[in-house]
Amino acid sequence: MSEEQFLAAAVEAAKNAGEIIRNGFYQTKNVEHKGQVDLVTETDKACEDLIFNHLRKHFPDHKFIGEETSAALGATADLTDDPTWIVDPLDGTTNFVHGFPFVCVSIGLTIGKIPTVGVVFNPIMNELFMAVRGKGAFLNGSPIKVSSQDELVKALLVTEVGTKRDKTTLDDTTNRINKLLYKIRSIRMCGSLALNMCGVACGRLDLCYEMGFGGPWDVAAGAVILQEAGGLVFDPSGGEFDLMSRRMAGSNGLLKDKFVKELGDTN
Amino acid sequence: MSEEQFLAAAVEAAKNAGEIIRNGFYQTKNVEHKGQVDLVTETDKACEDLIFNHLRKHFPDHKFIGEETSAALGATADLTDDPTWIVDPLDGTTNFVHGFPFVCVSIGLTIGKIPTVGVVFNPIMNELFMAVRGKGAFLNGSPIKVSSQDELVKALLVTEVGTKRDKTTLDDTTNRINKLLYKIRSIRMCGSLALNMCGVACGRLDLCYEMGFGGPWDVAAGAVILQEAGGLVFDPSGGEFDLMSRRMAGSNGLLKDKFVKELGDTN
Repeated sequence: MSEEQFLAAAVEAAKNAGEIIRNGFYQTKNVEHKGQVDLVTETDKACEDLIFNHLRKHFPDHKFIGEETSAALGATADLTDDPTWIVDPLDGTTNFVHGFPFVCVSIGLTIGKIPTVGVVFNPIMNELFMAVRGKGAFLNGSPIKVSSQDELVKALLVTEVGTKRDKTTLDDTTNRINKLLYKIRSIRMCGSLALNMCGVACGRLDLCYEMGFGGPWDVAAGAVILQEAGGLVFDPSGGEFDLMSRRMAGSNGLLKDKFVKELGDTN
Repeated sequence: MSEEQFLAAAVEAAKNAGEIIRNGFYQTKNVEHKGQVDLVTETDKACEDLIFNHLRKHFPDHKFIGEETSAALGATADLTDDPTWIVDPLDGTTNFVHGFPFVCVSIGLTIGKIPTVGVVFNPIMNELFMAVRGKGAFLNGSPIKVSSQDELVKALLVTEVGTKRDKTTLDDTTNRINKLLYKIRSIRMCGSLALNMCGVACGRLDLCYEMGFGGPWDVAAGAVILQEAGGLVFDPSGGEFDLMSRRMAGSNGLLKDKFVKELGDTN
């Protein structure tokens, strides 16, 4: 079984799930709040079922970790060396409810715990990012690469404020932003970590970080795409990226040390 | 001379300028930094010239206030009761340089100092927002309206951190965000105030505010579009919106008082 087959199956699954998301996206404004919550849950569930069924049919021996399944179990399965599909069926659920166009399907495959195949598809803006370890990264079929920016002061950062609203987390979040703003050009927040990583991969953005996000499904695909675009994925401390740690940062190779220094100043 | 003629001329000018922006947008990644700065300046200038020439040909007696012209003069002309075109030829210049797709042309017309015609065109995402006072607001020809959200805790806010990097401004900016985050669902920052206002107008976002932005060209068109979509445009203090004040906030009618209260808490 080749990595190209893994990629082809993931792309097909992402496109099929994308159609479900696109249909729901244009309905959310027409239903009341309770209906919106149901629509998110139904869309999330329908997409995860579709993706898992599709991949299981092709690769019955592979393992699966999904956001929906993990939420239902109340736990994330341990990551093993077996080929494991790690899936966020709908990243950017707040955007989905509001009709803000940064939503995506994120499908990653780890082999020996290493992110090896990544597909991130935004069905509203019709952007398909994909990568296979060692084979480069692509947006709608064209090769992409990270920016060549080497000055922090000209760098555009993307991050999110997350969902936690306790004082310690919020103060950490806004203090970090305050301190970074002295050093960088500006900041963007678009509501999807997977798409943020792809934005750095294709050089639209230079820096990204997030701590305390949902789980490995938010970053498994983005990590391959960003690395294959020539970027680095690392822990915000500068240490090695741990897929299961809910902490990530990314940049090109020229900015990493400067970025880590400024992130570190604020920890 | 009818408002429909004003609108038609503004739409034509915006689409022509949009073509220049689209061409530049896909070139910026291929030139070095000095080249990028030149490309922004050239694109800005070429778009403003194109728009002003187009409108002047149709409406030789009208007045004009443009971002580029004002920068060259070192001052913004006083707003009079005469019909006055207020133009930002390229809103989102940082995004333009980085290839991040939130860029737009913003063309507003005031009559008796009141924003009366507004056109905002994003040529990358191909979204044309337009409105005439009293005639409703439209996105790509379809009527738009603000969200019906009435709970702050479910509201999505969009704002920007601006370009000032002195301690007082930065602390105010991040303290305000910190305090708002306890009350709202989440925050987006996309890098174009005109498009932020249009995002609230079409209900993708619920709340927007910004203080200390460039000038009236950032908000003249957006104000008509947001008001005609059923929204309110006001000073962040809750007082009357002043087009020349470089301060604005916007929301639907249900959220305004709650939003102003939280913004006010932080002033």
